Parts: sequence; structure tokens; C-alpha cells
Amino acid sequence: MKKLINHPQNLRREFLAGLALAHADTLRVCLEPVYVVRADAPVPGKTAIVSGGGSGHEPLHAGFVGKGMLDAACPGEVFTSPTPDQIEAATRAVNGGAGVLHIVKNYTGDIMNFEMAAELCQAGGIEVRAVVINDDVAVEDSLYTAGRRGVGTTVLAEKLCGAAAQRGYDLARLETLCRKVNRDGRSIGMALTPCTVPAAGKPTFELREDEMEMGIGIHGEPGRERMPLLPAAELTARMAGTLLADLPFRSGDEVIAMVNGMGGTPLMELYLVYGELEQILQRHGIRVARRLVGNYITSLEMAGCSITLLKADDELLSLWDDPVFTPGLRWGI
Amino acid sequence: MKKLINHPQNLRREFLAGLALAHADTLRVCLEPVYVVRADAPVPGKTAIVSGGGSGHEPLHAGFVGKGMLDAACPGEVFTSPTPDQIEAATRAVNGGAGVLHIVKNYTGDIMNFEMAAELCQAGGIEVRAVVINDDVAVEDSLYTAGRRGVGTTVLAEKLCGAAAQRGYDLARLETLCRKVNRDGRSIGMALTPCTVPAAGKPTFELREDEMEMGIGIHGEPGRERMPLLPAAELTARMAGTLLADLPFRSGDEVIAMVNGMGGTPLMELYLVYGELEQILQRHGIRVARRLVGNYITSLEMAGCSITLLKADDELLSLWDDPVFTPGLRWGI
Repeated sequence: MKKLINHPQNLRREFLAGLALAHADTLRVCLEPVYVVRADAPVPGKTAIVSGGGSGHEPLHAGFVGKGMLDAACPGEVFTSPTPDQIEAATRAVNGGAGVLHIVKNYTGDIMNFEMAAELCQAGGIEVRAVVINDDVAVEDSLYTAGRRGVGTTVLAEKLCGAAAQRGYDLARLETLCRKVNRDGRSIGMALTPCTVPAAGKPTFELREDEMEMGIGIHGEPGRERMPLLPAAELTARMAGTLLADLPFRSGDEVIAMVNGMGGTPLMELYLVYGELEQILQRHGIRVARRLVGNYITSLEMAGCSITLLKADDELLSLWDDPVFTPGLRWGI
Repeated sequence: MKKLINHPQNLRREFLAGLALAHADTLRVCLEPVYVVRADAPVPGKTAIVSGGGSGHEPLHAGFVGKGMLDAACPGEVFTSPTPDQIEAATRAVNGGAGVLHIVKNYTGDIMNFEMAAELCQAGGIEVRAVVINDDVAVEDSLYTAGRRGVGTTVLAEKLCGAAAQRGYDLARLETLCRKVNRDGRSIGMALTPCTVPAAGKPTFELREDEMEMGIGIHGEPGRERMPLLPAAELTARMAGTLLADLPFRSGDEVIAMVNGMGGTPLMELYLVYGELEQILQRHGIRVARRLVGNYITSLEMAGCSITLLKADDELLSLWDDPVFTPGLRWGI
């Protein structure tokens, strides 16, 4: 295992120490229990947003803490759900009196622990609502998940809901928005190579030199099929076709599109895939109104990519353009 | 070879097609010859800045075209110098009448082709100055280079000079600034794994499972030594020590620091290295006034990192904070 770390058991703490030093103007890191909050938390009167999940998907979630996005993130150990005490402490730390939205990716452990934390907070008088993101069209009921997994749409939900909370949406309206984003967002991923969880020390799975895995999960969970490596044009067409059929998207739709790297894929390749994607969407009469191309929800050093399409409307596009100031996503400030 | 491409010979063109589609508000791509320019080029009366080099280091350089940074970038084929006709055409396209600065990384082919293009432009009445970046402390006279290689300081030079040009620095003052940045910037890199140039189809070098290469170049050129993999704390201390001794940096200095990923290293690990670096610098009485942590000058999917330190003063810090609007670096707009 080749990694720029000291000891696997210190990785999360040492990563967060570096994050805190690098972004002291944006966020603060608490270590007992582990969570990351906006530097100015709690913001009185603002609805707060907390997300979290296993580490190893950076910048998601810790890198999305800051003005216009998350109030707090709860990073678990690598590929491991955060514990209820982390989520409870983060929720308390960011509550500005207007309630807290939990954005939860659909993994059994995450769901259970966010629910437990929400109950504890509610017992303490904090209003909490939770929205579960389950946008991955690849598989139903996979390893760690009942139903569809939560992946790329989470990034878009955190940006859009973060902007809405900043504008003053109350908790009920924020929850409605987040449910709409989840309802209208779809993702699919693929991998060229596996990744290695530091504490395990060996790759999560194996792929032959001429093989790829379509529909991979962000923890290396099995996808739809192992298949011979395709040229990027065919690969993108296949991924886009699966997404377009699932919602279904229709000619005339506008979308926010994300071509996301799994961590180990060069930016050149992601832009190449984006170019293929936009041309495919054009042929279907779908206009990409906004887009992200880069590494936003990763799987350590896995090579591969995912595509997320979110049907957009005026509310979403306007919220998208609002300023955001986080380590992983920044504009307008 | 596992890559998200179609055919290696189309990679540069297809990458740029995607870049152009994704960032039409920021830049335009020309294909005959190949260069990338600011969407509003030429900007009348503004000194222009052109850089370039082999592709495969993205976002450098094409991803740094836009307001507050580069007016144009000339991407060669992967790890191959751009040709004089590319550089000449880009220089002509961005000349707003106030002359053009070429920022050139110190590789023999780049130097030769930028010089040839500058002569052609000057013969055509465009004033051109060139600054060569040679900040890599690892080796003298390596493969492809006489003297030190040009690496991470190039990113900082492009940001700082881009801001200065936007403020109205004339060509002579811009050249002076760029020389100062090069004089006061130092970098060193290391690799855990090699990368594969698509047209070659096999890794540029080989490293054993327990080995790393200290002082690697951004094309996989040999470094100072192959050595057993070190824990991140020791690795960072060794890299920082080499940099601090070279300038030399002194207690009381302020620096702009960059911890840069080579392309295949997770963000968690880069932040961990940044945390180690800032603590080491603190112990030397050196304050990190600004920083970048992420993938800025990469080597395809190589795993590893580089560290760049630039001695800062009020002029540099003020220019650093100016707005920048490019695909790879964006703030304040």
C-alpha cells in the first residue's frame, strides 16, 4: 500500500488537522467527537445543514463546509459511517434556532446513525428534518444499502440547499427543496481500478487489465457488470443512456451536469468525457445549463468517473449561481 | 493501459473540446493551430500573458486561462512541447497592443519553441518578453533540461502575473515581477507510482511496492534518489528541509505555499501533508500567509505530491488576493 500517510489509524485526524490549518478563514475542526463546522457557526436565525459519511470521498463532505453550502460535516473513518455522537454534536453546534436539515446518503449505517442523532437532538429541543439521497441508478439493494445508493446528487443538493439556507429558506421549505433535488437527480459511476482502504491495506476488489466495472459504488461496491474497457465515447453514451431513461429526462429539459472523477483519473480524461456527454445530451434536446467537471465525490485513488444529471428549473439555476465559499467549491466570493 | 479516452492521437483535441464546452463563458479553443484563449481576447491596452507546455499537467496551463490569470495557453501533445506556430498564433491572438509576456517552464524543447515564436512575433511588431521558470531544487541538468526544471512556481507566477496584468502593469514591470517570483520560489516533488503516456501505452518508469522516488520531475524524469517509502511526516520534513535550505528561507519570512497532487493522490493525503508542512514551517518561524492544496500541476495519474514555497511580500500577497476566474483557480468573482 502506497499512501502519503503516517499510520492508518491517525489518517482522519491528521487530514482534518491539515484542512483546519489550510482553511481557518472558512471552517473549524472539532476532534472530540469529530466534526467540521463553519467558522462562524452557529448563524443565528439561519436554517443549518449537516451532512456526513465515511471519509475517503473528499472534498465531500468536509471540503463543502462554508458559507453557501454546509454548516457542518461529520466525517467517519474511511468508508465508515459517522457515529451518532458526532452527528448530534455537529447538529447542536450549528443550530441557530431555525432547525437543522440532515442530508444523508443512502447507506444503512449512515441512515441509522443520523436517525439516532436526530432523535437525541429533537429530545433536546432542536427541530431536525432528514432527507435521504438515493440517486444511483446502477443497482438496487447493494452491499451496505437497501434501495439505491446515494452518490453524486449529494454534491448538488449540498450546494443548492446551502444557497437556499443562506437566502433564508425555513426548514420545511429547505426539506422540500432537498427532496426535489433528490427526486430529479440521477447518477451512475464506473471504475477502471479499485482503491485501497488504508486500514485494510489491500484493494477493495480486483479488475483485470482489460476490464472495467460499470455501476460501481463509491466504496467499491459491485456494480451492474464487469465488461471489457470501452472507448470513452461508447462508455459515456452507455452511462448517459442509462441516466436519461431512468428519470426520464425529456427533450427540452435543462440540466445541471456533473462529470466527477473517482480520485485517480486525470482532468484531461474528465473533460473528454464531459465533451462526449454534452454532445449526447444535445442530440437528445437536453441543454446543460450548469456543470461541474472535476473531483467532487471520490473513492480515494480509484480511477474512473461518475456522471450526475439533475433536471433544473429557474429556482435551482438561480440557487446554483449564488456565491459559495468552501475549500472544495468556491465562486462569487 | 486503462484510460477514459478514445484514441491517444485524439486525446488533446477531445480534451480541449470538452474544456471549451464546459467553460464557454471563460475561454475559447482554437484547433488550427492548437491554443486556448480568454473569451474576451485580445483585451485592448492590457499586457497579455501566454504560457504553455506539454499536456498532461492539467489544470496547468489550459485550465488557467481566464480573467486574472493567463490570456492564452498552448498545450502540446502529452508531455511534448508546443510548436512555434501554436505559440506564435496564441501570442498574436492575445496581443492587445501592450506586448506579451511568455512564461516558459525550463525544458529544452519549450525554451527553443517559445524563442522561435517570440522572434516571429517580434518581427511582426509585437513586443514579447520571456521569463523562464526553473524552480525545481531536485536536480540540475536532468532529462530534457539544462539547469533546473520548471514546476510548481509556474502556477503561482501565472496567478500573480495575471493579477498584475489585470491591474495594468506594463510589460517591463510584469517581466520584473515574474523574475522575482521565479527567484523567490522553490519546489520539490516525489512520486509513489509512475504514470502512463497514452501514446506510449506503458508506464514511464517502474517503482517497487515499497519504494518512492524523491525529486521526481513532472514527466517522470528521474529524481534525486529512490528510497523506501517514508511516513508522511518524515517525507514532508525531508522535502521542506531541502526547500528551506535552498533559497534560503529565514525565520520571519512569509510564504505562499502549495501542496500539489501529482494527479492520483487523494485529497485527504494532500491535506495531511499540508498539515505537516505548516507545522514544520512554524517551527522555523515561517508563516504561511496563503496556500493552495490540491491538484494544480499534475503528471497524468501519477501518485505523489510536490511542495512549492514562494517567499512573499506585500506586493505578492495583494496580487494573490485579486480576483481570478479560470476553470482551475477561481475566487472573488
